[in-house]
Amino acid sequence: MDETASYEVRELCETDLEHGFPELLAQLTQTGTLPLSFWRERYRLRQQLPGTYVTLVAVESATKRVTATATLLIEYKFTRSCGQAGHIEDVVVDAAYRRRNLGSRLVRELCARARDQFKCYKVTLDCVEENEAFYAKLGLERKGVQMVRYFRI
Amino acid sequence: MDETASYEVRELCETDLEHGFPELLAQLTQTGTLPLSFWRERYRLRQQLPGTYVTLVAVESATKRVTATATLLIEYKFTRSCGQAGHIEDVVVDAAYRRRNLGSRLVRELCARARDQFKCYKVTLDCVEENEAFYAKLGLERKGVQMVRYFRI
Repeated sequence: MDETASYEVRELCETDLEHGFPELLAQLTQTGTLPLSFWRERYRLRQQLPGTYVTLVAVESATKRVTATATLLIEYKFTRSCGQAGHIEDVVVDAAYRRRNLGSRLVRELCARARDQFKCYKVTLDCVEENEAFYAKLGLERKGVQMVRYFRI
Repeated sequence: MDETASYEVRELCETDLEHGFPELLAQLTQTGTLPLSFWRERYRLRQQLPGTYVTLVAVESATKRVTATATLLIEYKFTRSCGQAGHIEDVVVDAAYRRRNLGSRLVRELCARARDQFKCYKVTLDCVEENEAFYAKLGLERKGVQMVRYFRI
């Protein structure tokens, strides 16, 4: 591990789709084997929903490799004086780049953006129990349970 | 309780904002005391984010009273072959209209829309443990824990 490596944290760019972003997400969950054009289309669809998605990446400065990502989805509620809630989704760090605090950096940055840029009254995220301690260190507390229903589509 | 009362389930209309929708949501959580113009502005902001929000209401046919509501937020992911995930939010039934399956009807309808209209591969929702049995009857299963961080804004 190169402890001196530096990383740039910034928003996902369309060119990242050709530089490791799909392969990184595949370490988290099923991504399918779509051609690049589908990834671009999804990127552009999100761009057409202003104020709704912030996807951050940590890029290794020397190699330009996308080594970690996390997304903030902004929900425009009627409750809380028509306030905003942030949902943190799809946090993943490349297996070869763990233990460098990249996940923490991304989640901290998303929390800061949720609070300062989008004026969210809260951020929430769902995780497995094993990851609770990681998020607790970042100031999140357990609130309730996540319920899910999968569809065959 | 009038067991024969009938209810129309439909999408929230702007006029519902003047017919009990804010008062209904106030039974769920803090809504603040905003003037109607703010509710309208939020309604219109959501309309400008196409394919993102479905807020259903159950309206008592005889009185036109808004008696229950639930919202589906669609998330456009890169994972799952650039698939969609649905988030069910802000489910509330007027205290005077409970035990009539209105909550179940709304959540079932949102699940059907998530699957059929938006082609979601899953819906998720966060709840307190006491409500787990209610959602389990609607086909949702416990998956993990909800973590939350509140901000002072």
